[in-house]
Amino acid sequence: MESLNYAIGMAGTAAFAVTAVLAVAPKGIDLFGVCVMGIVTAIGGGTLRDIILGVPVFWSADLNYLWVALAASVAAFVAQPLFTRKEMYRLLLYIDGLAVALFAIQAADKVWTLQFGLPLAPVLLGIITAIGGGLIRDVLAGRQNLLMSRELYAVPVLFGCTLFVVAMAYLPQHRSLAGIVCVLSIFGFRAAVIHWHLCVPDCLSTRPKTD
Amino acid sequence: MESLNYAIGMAGTAAFAVTAVLAVAPKGIDLFGVCVMGIVTAIGGGTLRDIILGVPVFWSADLNYLWVALAASVAAFVAQPLFTRKEMYRLLLYIDGLAVALFAIQAADKVWTLQFGLPLAPVLLGIITAIGGGLIRDVLAGRQNLLMSRELYAVPVLFGCTLFVVAMAYLPQHRSLAGIVCVLSIFGFRAAVIHWHLCVPDCLSTRPKTD
Amino acid sequence: MESLNYAIGMAGTAAFAVTAVLAVAPKGIDLFGVCVMGIVTAIGGGTLRDIILGVPVFWSADLNYLWVALAASVAAFVAQPLFTRKEMYRLLLYIDGLAVALFAIQAADKVWTLQFGLPLAPVLLGIITAIGGGLIRDVLAGRQNLLMSRELYAVPVLFGCTLFVVAMAYLPQHRSLAGIVCVLSIFGFRAAVIHWHLCVPDCLSTRPKTD
Repeated sequence: MESLNYAIGMAGTAAFAVTAVLAVAPKGIDLFGVCVMGIVTAIGGGTLRDIILGVPVFWSADLNYLWVALAASVAAFVAQPLFTRKEMYRLLLYIDGLAVALFAIQAADKVWTLQFGLPLAPVLLGIITAIGGGLIRDVLAGRQNLLMSRELYAVPVLFGCTLFVVAMAYLPQHRSLAGIVCVLSIFGFRAAVIHWHLCVPDCLSTRPKTD
Repeated sequence: MESLNYAIGMAGTAAFAVTAVLAVAPKGIDLFGVCVMGIVTAIGGGTLRDIILGVPVFWSADLNYLWVALAASVAAFVAQPLFTRKEMYRLLLYIDGLAVALFAIQAADKVWTLQFGLPLAPVLLGIITAIGGGLIRDVLAGRQNLLMSRELYAVPVLFGCTLFVVAMAYLPQHRSLAGIVCVLSIFGFRAAVIHWHLCVPDCLSTRPKTD
Repeated sequence: MESLNYAIGMAGTAAFAVTAVLAVAPKGIDLFGVCVMGIVTAIGGGTLRDIILGVPVFWSADLNYLWVALAASVAAFVAQPLFTRKEMYRLLLYIDGLAVALFAIQAADKVWTLQFGLPLAPVLLGIITAIGGGLIRDVLAGRQNLLMSRELYAVPVLFGCTLFVVAMAYLPQHRSLAGIVCVLSIFGFRAAVIHWHLCVPDCLSTRPKTD
């Protein structure tokens, strides 16, 4: 179980870095910038979470996260055409979705264990862990970020982390099971979004002012 | 006194969230993004301050700040036309001004108590507390932020916090009185700015290059 | 040696603040914004590093960094034409380059001493210290940042910090010498970049999509 978690975590770190490189590449960026963007996207969310929690940043104890992000960034730079192929890109999106689910629930679990700001903080920090790195990347690259788009990227995380908090409050003895169910719920929701191109309905969005 | 502070703090948190939602709504944003922007604006400045101070973030001990920001964001999303009515919006601006004043002096007082980087840090962190959340919001929303505008938003905070530091240095026995006077000074200055639409004079601003 | 370090550090802090003001001035910004941008650029990178390390921010123990940044910002605002004169601006660029070199190796040395995330973290945090302040400034000012340009600004830092880490791993007894050599390497590389207007070759950069 532990090592499955770890393997998904590393695959997810790599997927975060690769999708980051693909996202910023069209703007014209050099290899150094590519590596910074890849690393920031892959570890930025968890770093923000740990800083807010006041605990040591997770990658200081296990540099594999940094090495994997760095290697994946270089690979994405060198073999960009490979990763932009349609099937490969779709595969990346699903790995990204699985990683988002895993990282979010790992974060919620960490916050719950620390008894930090229950019951709201596990949800808030789960979301920050999942999307924080991407937000920093988009700000640095001058891209519109996902908060301003209609993509359903963070909403599955919101549901999954809320579900986890409810489960921990009422069924604390089933922690592992709750974790697995919540990760699969987020991934399932996210996979449905990717597969059917779902987006936020009009009634839940403000109308942009047309100038 | 304590409970008056707390009530103003909560009203201010709500006002921060509502004005944030009104600021980003014209760009077209969904309910999830609205809640993130509201919460980030309401608690972002204080969170930055606590991270720089190396102390636990203030909302981890009192989740009411998060709940109020969340509720105010949803309310602003649902009842947007109500809050954009002229009188209501002006009222919001004044509540926002009072909250800015209170949060800034509370921050300066906290920094002073911790004896952190005196005498400059209370002023710097008072300003960061007051405007940090709005800066993060504007960066995330891709809006021009107040540092690049001519609005007199942070300058009253600068004066008020400086006044507080001077008062603490020379009249440390009158701490409560100094706090009240400084909050009222900031609010009075800010109210004058809102009422008379004051802005930074030309001589204190660089000329923008016209292309 | 200590006092030479300190003098370069202060000159560098001033140079960071002045170049920041010159960078944002063409956008039209008032004196308050100028001071915020100057201070953020001068101390932002080191502050980020210390927050990630979980240690007290460096300027809380020595406010001279803040005072120098503040004074330099005001000076740059008042005497802007003086600093934009060609020879003066070139001198600033070289002082900036020397400061970048010094701050990066000081950071790498600090991280090494803390035994934090060796061997990658000294390089990563050396880079963050050197360019973090400038990145925050550009994000706040809505400017394109150096990650998205072809300028060789951070690459010399990457080489210098890597060299330092290698030296510490194999020749730990020559710490001071390694520090000096690495600072001079970064500065020499950066001076060559400034003098010959070097930039990243095409093969190490993605092609920007032309719309």
